[in-house]
Amino acid sequence: MTMVVAALLCGLAAVLYGIITSRSLLAASAGNEKMQEIAGAIQEGARAYLGRQYTAIAIVGVIVAVLVFVFLGMVPAIGFVVGAVLSGITGFIGMNISVKTNVRTAQAASESLQSGLNVAFRAGAVTGMLVAGLALLSIAGLFYVLVTVSGIAPDDRTVIDGLVALAFGASLISIFARLGGGIFTKAADVGADLVGKVEAGIPEDDPRNPAVIADNVGDNVGDCAGMAADLFETYVVTVGATMVLTALQLGTGLSDGMLGNLMSLPLIVGGVCIITSIIGTFFVRLGKSQNIMGALYKGFLVSAILAVPALYFVTQWAIPDLNTDIGVLAGSTGNLTGTDAQAFAATAAFSGMDLFWSMMVGLVVTGLIVWITEYYTSVNYRPVRSIAAASVTGHGTNVIQGLAISLEATALPTLVICAGIIVAYGFAGIIGIAFAATAMLALAGMIVALDAYGPVTDNAGGIAEMAGLDDSVRDKTDALDAVGNTTKAVTKGYAIGSAALAALVLFGAYTEDLKYFGSAIGLEGPVNFSLSNPFVIVGLLLGALLPYLFGAFGMTAVGRAAGEVVKDVRQQFKNDPGIMAGTSRPNYASTVDLVTKAAIKEMIIPSLLPLLAPIVVYFVISAIGTPADGFAAVGALLLGVIVSGLFVAISMTSGGGAWDNAKKYIEDGNHGGKGSEAHKAAVTGDTVGDPYKDTAGPAVNPMIKITNIVAILLLAALAH
Amino acid sequence: MTMVVAALLCGLAAVLYGIITSRSLLAASAGNEKMQEIAGAIQEGARAYLGRQYTAIAIVGVIVAVLVFVFLGMVPAIGFVVGAVLSGITGFIGMNISVKTNVRTAQAASESLQSGLNVAFRAGAVTGMLVAGLALLSIAGLFYVLVTVSGIAPDDRTVIDGLVALAFGASLISIFARLGGGIFTKAADVGADLVGKVEAGIPEDDPRNPAVIADNVGDNVGDCAGMAADLFETYVVTVGATMVLTALQLGTGLSDGMLGNLMSLPLIVGGVCIITSIIGTFFVRLGKSQNIMGALYKGFLVSAILAVPALYFVTQWAIPDLNTDIGVLAGSTGNLTGTDAQAFAATAAFSGMDLFWSMMVGLVVTGLIVWITEYYTSVNYRPVRSIAAASVTGHGTNVIQGLAISLEATALPTLVICAGIIVAYGFAGIIGIAFAATAMLALAGMIVALDAYGPVTDNAGGIAEMAGLDDSVRDKTDALDAVGNTTKAVTKGYAIGSAALAALVLFGAYTEDLKYFGSAIGLEGPVNFSLSNPFVIVGLLLGALLPYLFGAFGMTAVGRAAGEVVKDVRQQFKNDPGIMAGTSRPNYASTVDLVTKAAIKEMIIPSLLPLLAPIVVYFVISAIGTPADGFAAVGALLLGVIVSGLFVAISMTSGGGAWDNAKKYIEDGNHGGKGSEAHKAAVTGDTVGDPYKDTAGPAVNPMIKITNIVAILLLAALAH
Repeated sequence: MTMVVAALLCGLAAVLYGIITSRSLLAASAGNEKMQEIAGAIQEGARAYLGRQYTAIAIVGVIVAVLVFVFLGMVPAIGFVVGAVLSGITGFIGMNISVKTNVRTAQAASESLQSGLNVAFRAGAVTGMLVAGLALLSIAGLFYVLVTVSGIAPDDRTVIDGLVALAFGASLISIFARLGGGIFTKAADVGADLVGKVEAGIPEDDPRNPAVIADNVGDNVGDCAGMAADLFETYVVTVGATMVLTALQLGTGLSDGMLGNLMSLPLIVGGVCIITSIIGTFFVRLGKSQNIMGALYKGFLVSAILAVPALYFVTQWAIPDLNTDIGVLAGSTGNLTGTDAQAFAATAAFSGMDLFWSMMVGLVVTGLIVWITEYYTSVNYRPVRSIAAASVTGHGTNVIQGLAISLEATALPTLVICAGIIVAYGFAGIIGIAFAATAMLALAGMIVALDAYGPVTDNAGGIAEMAGLDDSVRDKTDALDAVGNTTKAVTKGYAIGSAALAALVLFGAYTEDLKYFGSAIGLEGPVNFSLSNPFVIVGLLLGALLPYLFGAFGMTAVGRAAGEVVKDVRQQFKNDPGIMAGTSRPNYASTVDLVTKAAIKEMIIPSLLPLLAPIVVYFVISAIGTPADGFAAVGALLLGVIVSGLFVAISMTSGGGAWDNAKKYIEDGNHGGKGSEAHKAAVTGDTVGDPYKDTAGPAVNPMIKITNIVAILLLAALAH
Repeated sequence: MTMVVAALLCGLAAVLYGIITSRSLLAASAGNEKMQEIAGAIQEGARAYLGRQYTAIAIVGVIVAVLVFVFLGMVPAIGFVVGAVLSGITGFIGMNISVKTNVRTAQAASESLQSGLNVAFRAGAVTGMLVAGLALLSIAGLFYVLVTVSGIAPDDRTVIDGLVALAFGASLISIFARLGGGIFTKAADVGADLVGKVEAGIPEDDPRNPAVIADNVGDNVGDCAGMAADLFETYVVTVGATMVLTALQLGTGLSDGMLGNLMSLPLIVGGVCIITSIIGTFFVRLGKSQNIMGALYKGFLVSAILAVPALYFVTQWAIPDLNTDIGVLAGSTGNLTGTDAQAFAATAAFSGMDLFWSMMVGLVVTGLIVWITEYYTSVNYRPVRSIAAASVTGHGTNVIQGLAISLEATALPTLVICAGIIVAYGFAGIIGIAFAATAMLALAGMIVALDAYGPVTDNAGGIAEMAGLDDSVRDKTDALDAVGNTTKAVTKGYAIGSAALAALVLFGAYTEDLKYFGSAIGLEGPVNFSLSNPFVIVGLLLGALLPYLFGAFGMTAVGRAAGEVVKDVRQQFKNDPGIMAGTSRPNYASTVDLVTKAAIKEMIIPSLLPLLAPIVVYFVISAIGTPADGFAAVGALLLGVIVSGLFVAISMTSGGGAWDNAKKYIEDGNHGGKGSEAHKAAVTGDTVGDPYKDTAGPAVNPMIKITNIVAILLLAALAH
């Protein structure tokens, strides 16, 4: 159990890093009075939104917590509440640091690009380390309290249900936060652009636009708070699922001590990678070439490369004899007999080195996905440039080419993930895939740092514009922001890629649970998951439908809310001509309020979709056929949602990022630059890409996980 | 075998209907000299394109035919050639009747709406009946020659391989024709719109636009010839797969006579539905309300309702004792022993009535898909109107709403298909699904008639415009064309819906073949198709990728070719100012030639994707693992491609249709009408929807089938 304590200490180190760095950031100058006034309005709006969002979520959360308590008991209920509350706190802290450092980044950028990058990146790093640190603390803490303090066996149902419920709490909050924040940010962004840039012909972030504060609030509540909650969820679910699967598959054959070690390994893996990530943050420095992406990559590469020996070290700590199969090491299959012993020997036929190599697969997959996403969303390569070139012939061709790129962008990540599945499975079966996914997520601190820096620079640019700072400041924040578009797409690709692996692990846990519960849930024999079973096909189709329907809801919500913003702004312009003349101040707060209400209203129904789908499918199908048919359909639903969701999410997030940067590429003076017909077409593409990449696409990730977790909880609830 | 003869006679009746109707159509007036001149240019372009497209396809076709001969033998090679040639002929005839009746429709519309509808619909009906008739003749003819004339047992591998190869030939041609035609029509359409409507500000179909003839040629080679080849393929594959699956599943336990009857049933089902479709054509008449859609629906409903007793009658003909299980009726399971006899009894535990009810499921699914597609693409309902309303706030919101609708449009068809699968499977297992699909396709003659009438009216409108006919003529052809947008979307939804069922049947055939070949293809036991097998997951992901990659190719091709059209037209305007002044004639032929070359060049690579994917996946995966792993991955690939393809295809075809009609809705005077900002935004949406609905989306259907058929042929080739 020293490993769990070590993991807890690493988690605390992350929190400590966050506190110290925040203090040093807040000590920096917050700029002149005008800048602080604008930043104050953004802070106020963001806090008001999150407050109301959390109130709405709390209502759902309390109902679900009661249901968890009734159907599953006290420990799962506590796990659920811990996961939910910490997920919410992570989002809140992320937003809070972001709204305080945006103005400081603007101020720092007026000194130099390096200073601007320093403030913005360290702000991102605070969020990143807190996401990883709090996530690790929650799982390790729960495990420590239950196993070490309370002395419950690590594979006891109390521990398993507690971990699953913890993940459920995190997922539930995260889907609301991702979707609500995503709708807010893009409704404000699209609305502001349509009525400002397109109709009134005023620049982006012009203080005369009443929607401009809402747009900046959106960056913080969507791209920052929503993203943080999402990655917190991804971390908790992936690490938790790895521990649960280990317990379910190996629990019967291993001694408690050895099982405890194996279940602690994912925790300490997360722990040491937090340390390598913290070290990595100190390497984010501009070189001679002033290449921002290069500076960020240096930090990422240092974290990833240091992770290799660190992971080797902790694997050896957990399993000192690295080269002997776990099954052989256990030697205790003597308490299993006949086919059980055979089954265990087959399942546990992997060594510590196999686990280490599986984790290397996870690191390689992460690296490749980062690289592929950069290729598809950076201004330096064919995809973005082809969209920019297509803008010359108009709005239509811009959108056609953007859609073509978004479809194409799914190919290489899919091949990488397929290769990762095959290789990791080859090392250690489904447990190998679980450890690959865990290693991917272990780098979350650094990846979130790269991402969370984006909204800070985006806001900094807005503040510079509104406060009338020198154009050179805006040029610097724009340069930082363009890279932010790519890193934001990278995080989403990474999250959904890890989700594909995590979903397989969750499916593994689901099938193990079916075996475990057996007759308690009405099963007379094994469930037929063969593709020849029509209920499996139906499940796959229904699962594949979920991301489409969810995407439709998200896109419609943004379109509708953006339309309301347009009407509100038009009304303000009409009622007070002084706004356009620059003599009177627009009513920013009313627009923020309008978007707040719309986002909260629109997030509820789609978020319930993945929550209810497995339950409805189970009861409908088992009413038509048998419980076994119902479980087969639900299992297939879980894979259908990932098979389809992977493509929907990658195409939307990469495509959206490419559209955004195609516009930036034209604004850099290509194809006629700002104000040209090509630029207008590129603005259309960017508008279309907005809800793609920041609302519908990223929310698919928590959606996939929540569907899987609900299915697992459904089994436990049916058995109770 | 009298049933097969009867089916052949029904096929001949369809051909006869085609010949007689064509004659009467050609006897109608072809309008004035100017109209004939324009129509002549379209005819010339269409024939030139198809000639060159077929030459290019023939090269691939001859290579594949040789490969089929080498790996599978003479009969499959002949089957392949028959399927390929007839598919080509169907497309050619469809194009030919379309280019001759377009001008006659324009002339007739100058008399009355009813006359215009008469000519256009009967032209569509000629294509429809020839598609169904020739498809039926090809399968029934091959079956007759092999079984009746040559006396080969109906479940002999010669018959099975021959039928599969026939389907393969049809599919191979159809994917090229669909994609090549789709690229041609949309490159010309998008290019003409961008440079004419948007840049030069001249109306659609203005004779001064050098791309205008190419646009009209495109309607004929894409929406007509490509569509006809596609539906020919769908028909042959579905009916053929039903016969093959029947032979594979029931061949061992049934007498040759009873098996022959069961295998002939799909043929006579197709036969009688041709007759009900021919009767239905006579009911297409405008009522007092002048409702065009209503007139077309009358024809469809009559065909479908008459099909009910007809199907009952033919089922009773094939299986006189309708209420006893086939397995019991066979009574010959005596020649099977032990588990074989048990397995057969379980498989054949369905009666004639069960088959009849399965076919009713097919008819209901068809009706529901028609109804749902109309809801999503007609100007009368929320989806299209929401896109039109979103156009008021600009290009961006139009596209966002269009994408939202395209995602949403997948939901109801998926639920209908899932329900269809469950119910049909409940009646008669996988054979029930096969007969449901067959019944769907049996109505193809009428469905194609409704569709093929669209390009005729589209062309008629163009000719009326270019020949300077009275505006009232254009109004009538526009009214006919708006309905054409919906019927075109309906056909595509119908084709892809039936493809979902057909793909399950083909997957069933694939798994039966795996059992049949067994050790001959390196298998030591059953293939593990469980979702717990990682190779199944990898196969599902790779299969799901295919429609995305294919869609990306298609969209890129259209964008690129349209860009070339824009450049060509700009050059023509620049070189000869007399074109815009109306004093000199643009060089239509050079634009047609340019699009022809581009379409043929662009269609090759994407069409090879589904052809090669199963082969590459098999060899790569079995090199990594075992042949069983390879076959598991390929099997999952087949389902992955349908699980993903269903959504890609429906979202693209319904979404595209909705965008098109949203534009038409605005042109009807809503939201500011023609020339308003909303109209400009709607034109952008229409442009984006063009390659969605007419290039990438519909080509997914043959793509799914070809992947499945190649997999089945791969097994046969490996066994040889």
